[in-house]
Amino acid sequence: MSGPVSRDASRRARAYLLRVAEPPCPALVEFIAEVGPVRAAERVREGSVPGPVADETSARRHLDLADADLAAGAAVGARLVTPEDDEWPAWPFTALANATARGLRGGVPPLALWVRGPRSLNELAENAVAVVGSRAASGYGQHVATEFGHGLAAAGVTVVSGAAYGVDGAAHRGAVAAEGPTVAVLACGADLAYPAGHSGLLDRIVEHGAVASEYPPGTTPARYRFLVRNRLIAALGGGTVVVEAGARSGAKSTAAVSRALGRVLMAVPGPITSATSVGCHELLRSGEAVAVSSVDEIIESTGRLGADLVDPGSPETRATDGLDGDAARVYDALATGTGHSAERIAVDAGVPLARVRAILPTLELGGLAFRCTAGWRRARAPTPHGER
Amino acid sequence: MSGPVSRDASRRARAYLLRVAEPPCPALVEFIAEVGPVRAAERVREGSVPGPVADETSARRHLDLADADLAAGAAVGARLVTPEDDEWPAWPFTALANATARGLRGGVPPLALWVRGPRSLNELAENAVAVVGSRAASGYGQHVATEFGHGLAAAGVTVVSGAAYGVDGAAHRGAVAAEGPTVAVLACGADLAYPAGHSGLLDRIVEHGAVASEYPPGTTPARYRFLVRNRLIAALGGGTVVVEAGARSGAKSTAAVSRALGRVLMAVPGPITSATSVGCHELLRSGEAVAVSSVDEIIESTGRLGADLVDPGSPETRATDGLDGDAARVYDALATGTGHSAERIAVDAGVPLARVRAILPTLELGGLAFRCTAGWRRARAPTPHGER
Repeated sequence: MSGPVSRDASRRARAYLLRVAEPPCPALVEFIAEVGPVRAAERVREGSVPGPVADETSARRHLDLADADLAAGAAVGARLVTPEDDEWPAWPFTALANATARGLRGGVPPLALWVRGPRSLNELAENAVAVVGSRAASGYGQHVATEFGHGLAAAGVTVVSGAAYGVDGAAHRGAVAAEGPTVAVLACGADLAYPAGHSGLLDRIVEHGAVASEYPPGTTPARYRFLVRNRLIAALGGGTVVVEAGARSGAKSTAAVSRALGRVLMAVPGPITSATSVGCHELLRSGEAVAVSSVDEIIESTGRLGADLVDPGSPETRATDGLDGDAARVYDALATGTGHSAERIAVDAGVPLARVRAILPTLELGGLAFRCTAGWRRARAPTPHGER
Repeated sequence: MSGPVSRDASRRARAYLLRVAEPPCPALVEFIAEVGPVRAAERVREGSVPGPVADETSARRHLDLADADLAAGAAVGARLVTPEDDEWPAWPFTALANATARGLRGGVPPLALWVRGPRSLNELAENAVAVVGSRAASGYGQHVATEFGHGLAAAGVTVVSGAAYGVDGAAHRGAVAAEGPTVAVLACGADLAYPAGHSGLLDRIVEHGAVASEYPPGTTPARYRFLVRNRLIAALGGGTVVVEAGARSGAKSTAAVSRALGRVLMAVPGPITSATSVGCHELLRSGEAVAVSSVDEIIESTGRLGADLVDPGSPETRATDGLDGDAARVYDALATGTGHSAERIAVDAGVPLARVRAILPTLELGGLAFRCTAGWRRARAPTPHGER
């Protein structure tokens, strides 16, 4: 399945399926995992699929626009990145699939992504933080988002956001001003400039990072697609910073997915007199998010998350070999027989509590730790042969 | 010891000792607990006391100004409230003594308090919240402190603070504007108007609540006395709200004592661009404080704390009889065999996490719960006969 010919067949199959199925499509994802993308596309085309897959594909299965979409993408510099490609961000999307298995509603990996921009999507996602918030950001929120975008990108951290007005745009703009990496995930085709006022900004994002979308070229944005898209922003960020959010901001859906993925969720305090900080303060008050006031605090909280923190493990290594200093100390501080609170582990490991809270879910995703009623305990280390 | 004559003797003894010993005086407090105030005063006067008590009393033991101080106090409407009086806030100061026993440095109850104002100090402290913060408060901080002071006092919650410029004064002013209860604890004699600019405010505080101090009439404020005084503000508040605090604000000492007393510590978010919110954000980020954005959230977090939450227990009642609805549910959710995290207890009890976090330390003070490495567990309920 890994030769250039089969890759091309996979790509055409996935281009077809992306056009046919409206994301998220959990049954189709599962079906592809069973029979492979090429066979899945054939079966969808024939209509010979299990009921749940038919529900997701029957309405548009006659739209075979794979070649046209690939040509339209190429015409605007958009390539289709698939799980069969080296630049597929496997770790972030595996986390999404794992969270789905644990019951995250709508937390389904994309079938593939249309991507504009010269850089490898996987490399961009290796050290990335999502910066999200209200469209109707205040001057304060825009200022903070710009500063954070600039500071993170200048530190080499990819700023992932949704290119919307308000916080999103400010975060991207800060990253672009620093000539640092940034990724915009769109809720429309990667070829469309949406919002129109961000046309120039999107061009600059492509120069410094990537514009990505699971929607075929020409797909127009729709209200529900923004929420569906938010899961990809959360998955690509090793953590999520909510800069400003009203009581019912869409940023809260990104925050919820981020938590479900075990990523560290951060919120920026603001004036309690500001309606656009209400959502942030709710996240802080409930303990779902940790407060961040600076780029340094974001980096401290997220650390080297994602693929870096826990080495996926080659046949010759142990999973714990991939742990960096703090993560190794937290892992060492975990007991096997009983659970401990994050506070206790922070004391035992001598690692700041905020950092411990960020590391523990990542160890969990790596199969090195798990939650029990009494707190966190160590899992049996995975065997060296990749049985995770 | 409870007749009018012995009360008068106790009061004179304590007036003498307050003049002789600079608070906090842990050895003297312990000595009084052993031999009683009258005998303690005699022994101090004679110089026949244990070494640590001598260290605290020898410099001024010849200053026998009890009668003069009582007369000076009376002349300005200040009475000396002692542990032998009904209006002594026994619960708050017992908590201080307990915290001392657990190692809180400088957390020593006062020998007595000079008080101006018509209301019973104990009644004022029954449902009270400390509102503290920077002298150099921003307009935002002053606005929030005034709103909180007003809203709390209007809801019948006593606003305890230190009468300083900035947050303190604004909180008192809000309470006074609501014609609600407020207590100012001074770091100088209760007869002095300090700061001078708050002379009129102090008069109005006396009308609506109380001005209290452990320093004899005429004592001038000194830098170290502000920190010593802060422990009394923390003890009299069923919880402490830090409205604004710079990186090195004195409000952080009040916050630390509040935590050590097991009281809920709250911090107000503010702009991360504001130097006067840095201390608040540190408290939030570390998890020491819970974020509060409104009077309702303060009341939700503190609930009916202090003397109300856990009934001290008459011979005919169980300690758990005094638990209100939420506290009873939290107590019921505690396991006896193993500890659980506050998060788990919140789920089991169906009580908001912020409220659970406020209730648990109060149950601990009441001897109903304790912390173990795995979290919180239930203590054996005290016997009905007051053996706590």
